[in-house]
Amino acid sequence: MTTPPSSSTPSTPLHATPDADGRLVRNQGVTGPAGFRAAGIAAGIKASGRPDLALVVNEGPELAAAGVFTTNKVKAAPVLWSQQVLASASLRAVILNSGGANACTGAPGFQDAHRTAEHLAAELSNWGTETGAIEVAVCSTGLIGDRLPMDTVLAGVTEIVHELAGGISGGTDAAHAIMTTDTVPKQAALHHVGKWNVGGMAKGAGMLAPSLATMLCVLTTDAAATPEQLDHALRAATRLTFDRLDVDGATSTNDTVLLLASGASNVAPSQDELDAAVLAVCDDLAAQLMADAEGVTKRVTITVRGARTEDEALVGARAVARDSLVKTALFGSDPNWGRVLAAIGAAPVELDPDRISVAFDGNAVCIDGVGAPGARDVDLSGEDITVVVDLAVGDGEASVRTTDLSHAYVEENSAYSS
Amino acid sequence: MTTPPSSSTPSTPLHATPDADGRLVRNQGVTGPAGFRAAGIAAGIKASGRPDLALVVNEGPELAAAGVFTTNKVKAAPVLWSQQVLASASLRAVILNSGGANACTGAPGFQDAHRTAEHLAAELSNWGTETGAIEVAVCSTGLIGDRLPMDTVLAGVTEIVHELAGGISGGTDAAHAIMTTDTVPKQAALHHVGKWNVGGMAKGAGMLAPSLATMLCVLTTDAAATPEQLDHALRAATRLTFDRLDVDGATSTNDTVLLLASGASNVAPSQDELDAAVLAVCDDLAAQLMADAEGVTKRVTITVRGARTEDEALVGARAVARDSLVKTALFGSDPNWGRVLAAIGAAPVELDPDRISVAFDGNAVCIDGVGAPGARDVDLSGEDITVVVDLAVGDGEASVRTTDLSHAYVEENSAYSS
Repeated sequence: MTTPPSSSTPSTPLHATPDADGRLVRNQGVTGPAGFRAAGIAAGIKASGRPDLALVVNEGPELAAAGVFTTNKVKAAPVLWSQQVLASASLRAVILNSGGANACTGAPGFQDAHRTAEHLAAELSNWGTETGAIEVAVCSTGLIGDRLPMDTVLAGVTEIVHELAGGISGGTDAAHAIMTTDTVPKQAALHHVGKWNVGGMAKGAGMLAPSLATMLCVLTTDAAATPEQLDHALRAATRLTFDRLDVDGATSTNDTVLLLASGASNVAPSQDELDAAVLAVCDDLAAQLMADAEGVTKRVTITVRGARTEDEALVGARAVARDSLVKTALFGSDPNWGRVLAAIGAAPVELDPDRISVAFDGNAVCIDGVGAPGARDVDLSGEDITVVVDLAVGDGEASVRTTDLSHAYVEENSAYSS
Repeated sequence: MTTPPSSSTPSTPLHATPDADGRLVRNQGVTGPAGFRAAGIAAGIKASGRPDLALVVNEGPELAAAGVFTTNKVKAAPVLWSQQVLASASLRAVILNSGGANACTGAPGFQDAHRTAEHLAAELSNWGTETGAIEVAVCSTGLIGDRLPMDTVLAGVTEIVHELAGGISGGTDAAHAIMTTDTVPKQAALHHVGKWNVGGMAKGAGMLAPSLATMLCVLTTDAAATPEQLDHALRAATRLTFDRLDVDGATSTNDTVLLLASGASNVAPSQDELDAAVLAVCDDLAAQLMADAEGVTKRVTITVRGARTEDEALVGARAVARDSLVKTALFGSDPNWGRVLAAIGAAPVELDPDRISVAFDGNAVCIDGVGAPGARDVDLSGEDITVVVDLAVGDGEASVRTTDLSHAYVEENSAYSS
């Protein structure tokens, strides 16, 4: 089993430094914070028989929630459903399935998502937690274009309610059940010991998207926070983490990031404290997603600095991160800096070709647009590679996490649905 | 040796139908029209000892010329040089080398391009064709970032002038000498028998670019035409052909397309006739480039129709053509139409997800945003695949040629410079 890089790996932590009393762990996720239970089961949606249904329930006392969804104009039915229920900024539960995206399934697919939420609400109510369908978000991941096997899904919903658990096991089971081509589950929890906590799980080993790299991510906190505070923290964190993780430039129809707050800690952190904690968990999950992206052999961080603005730095970094010729060169451990210049030169950003400098792993390979001595001999055989492009026209800086383009990527993606 | 597809292959001819009396052949190129001689030699620039220096000379009586260059802001020295000399809209000769791009080489690289042109001008003058450096375009292709071995280049220039030949041989030698990872030379000539002709050669088996797919292409005609007429014909043709060939989304620092007219036929075609002939030759060369792109196992044409405008159709078609998940699915002969919807949905074009239809090779796989019966069973095992996306919101239509994303692409591009 692949071991995700520790967040002390040089290229991994881009943004987040948990505050002094915060402790980040990876053996817990959505049930790290108080007030949450979760479960994951094999409902029979996947032909393989592997776990495929996950549930996260907020036991309160508060039900505040926020969400960020794919910007793709083709949105899966569960995204359309969850966007509607999020209008109330209140969520009791999130039900997630792998084994089928329920995307491009038309009105019947939307009804399937609705029925799933209704059925879960009824089951939770039966067990004493009065719930309306309007308080249930639905997430799906898997192949686009097929209806879900609804008898199987609904039977699974009935079953999974019995499996709800807190502590480490419930969250870990859920994190396993949302995996598709992921090789490891992704969890992180930030504990402010004795005070309040943020936890999360994510999946997304491929189709990591330009504008929302995680296909599915559920975050929880036992902080007391308003929906507006949650929304602020979530958007600030996703902008710097999942939005800057770019494996193959594709944007999924199903990308969803949800943040639920139970208020069970009775602690109401400041906006800055909440922002920092959510960012720390998202940053760690993004690093885990990069490390487990389909076919990855290199973990690459592209930084563009000296751009006119941060936005232009991001556009430039994304252009380099998506360039197939750069990515194949990195797969081959080839310090082919000319491809970096060709990629940034084609990006819609202000630059002067004669002032661009490039460094690989801290070694200057191009200075003022011309190759540096020894540039062809830089050793890129390690698993972590940093590429820094300095445009020297301003102060804008941004970093994007990406991967190489390998044989394994081609293999995995040419055989996915067949 | 790979055989390029004949232009009668269904997916190949996108635009061009040579007029009734025009005959398109592929055994001739730049020396097909009267008034041109060409040569190709192994000058020793490539370590492999393969041909690496090509020359095309216009013997007149006219020297009118037009050019189109890469839009990359990082432009190779020979591009900067050739853009300058084209200001006079007159060219006597084009000298082209493979084995080195002379890009990102700074002022010394520009001086190298200048010296090459000066030396060729002197050698041609010695042999009786009075020429100034300002009449010599320079093209280079190969690895970015290294200076050219100028002693070798200049000695090659001296030698190649002796090798100039008309007929089939000169053009074919030149077409061979500009190859890098190409497996076959690309030539086409359109003969209006007994009247006037257009010929051309191209190279570009990789780094086929979004806005100018050919790294290098030289077109010739014995028509009598003004530089303005040539410029019009060249821009109209490249917009519909090379600009719509998109293998990996990369834009080279060296892309150059030149059109030289000798007037040797004494025929002055109308603008429409000239446009049609140049388009026919460019279209055929673009089809040959696609067929020989790095690692290609599928030749794919993506058409978006029913878009709000032609521009939006083109943006949409390009987005699908560049999507790594679509391209790997096609490599696997997998009719995974959901990835097409995800790709078009992420493109900045107007669409209604519930009205999109998709067909693979003429078989409907998605109708009004939902899978069509039998969609998963469509046979895509053939080498030519057409993908048609109908957005049903307008009349805009455009097609882009692309390829699959294969193991061979990864292999070739991860080992290029090492």
